[in-house]
Amino acid sequence: MTGSLRRVYEGVVQDAIDELGRLPGVGPKGAQRIVEHLLQANDDDVDSLLTALRTMKQHVVFCALCGNYAEEEQCRICQDARRDRSLLCIVEEPKDIVAIERSREFSGIYHVLGGVIDPMNGIGPEQLRIKELMTRLTDSSINEVILATNPSIVGEATSVYLVRMLSPLGVAVSALASGLPVGGDLEYADEATLGRAFSGRRMMNV
Amino acid sequence: MTGSLRRVYEGVVQDAIDELGRLPGVGPKGAQRIVEHLLQANDDDVDSLLTALRTMKQHVVFCALCGNYAEEEQCRICQDARRDRSLLCIVEEPKDIVAIERSREFSGIYHVLGGVIDPMNGIGPEQLRIKELMTRLTDSSINEVILATNPSIVGEATSVYLVRMLSPLGVAVSALASGLPVGGDLEYADEATLGRAFSGRRMMNV
Repeated sequence: MTGSLRRVYEGVVQDAIDELGRLPGVGPKGAQRIVEHLLQANDDDVDSLLTALRTMKQHVVFCALCGNYAEEEQCRICQDARRDRSLLCIVEEPKDIVAIERSREFSGIYHVLGGVIDPMNGIGPEQLRIKELMTRLTDSSINEVILATNPSIVGEATSVYLVRMLSPLGVAVSALASGLPVGGDLEYADEATLGRAFSGRRMMNV
Repeated sequence: MTGSLRRVYEGVVQDAIDELGRLPGVGPKGAQRIVEHLLQANDDDVDSLLTALRTMKQHVVFCALCGNYAEEEQCRICQDARRDRSLLCIVEEPKDIVAIERSREFSGIYHVLGGVIDPMNGIGPEQLRIKELMTRLTDSSINEVILATNPSIVGEATSVYLVRMLSPLGVAVSALASGLPVGGDLEYADEATLGRAFSGRRMMNV
């Protein structure tokens, strides 16, 4: 059944379906639906979509300093004079910066690793932007490094590796707290999260 | 939460997310994922996607005869000399042709209505390709018209309308059988389908 869905049209329509089907989260059926939509859509709307994608691909580069998406040599955060340059937050991907910015909890600057150390998938420290991180730390005014990798096995292993790399530099290193998500329900928390919530419990003033 | 997902990036990246988010089946989160994928992808792959979409939009027209997708004035089915021109199958959309072709049960030609009569959504007979259908029937060798609208309320209402339009022409009119899907389970069939299966039951030779 899946096989028969793979090539239902032919010619340029099927070519477009095949290309769209390679995008993440878009299967052959989703690609077919998008193509049918585009064929019915007016030319201006399709132009506007294609132009937006091409413009993005042409204009977006990686920030020379932190590795975030940027439209100039440096991203808007690195360019922003109001950011606290003594606090450096290390994240896996640019999308993590987006999530942290949304929280409005952090006013420092970032460093994007470009992934995590993941030997099972052949990714070692040398494939990440760790050398660039060490360079940034030697000649800058950074007082504290905040590790904000994902609370996954590979994310935490990467943080452990970074702690070992950073400790000789004498810079303070911290990591984001793990525990119960705000608004979450204790009843539905998994064991690992609940375990973290206990081991990381805060003493309250009474 | 959904609101805060709407605009997480800015500039050309967010423009691309906004455009992708308008496609059917691609929400803001899906659009963000696709954009992150495209930013990491190499230029050739992105070019190949954009070129396929642009080529499709530029080359695909609607068949002058039946209304199916075509890369020339007539679609490949209308051009195919082996098709039986005495049998005309009426469908709602080009994608229905794809489904019927896959079944390999039909060797005639098609007529695409371009939708169904749906007064609730302001679609009357004059918005569909019914005038074109009547023209085709007056000067052609069609002996039988097979109604293959969807077995939905609006699809069947459209078929009822077409039967009334076609009956003065003296052409035979049939409709696809409704009943239990092949390979389906009687236990899980809905009442309407089971009702159709009873009323349309075939006598068996004993």
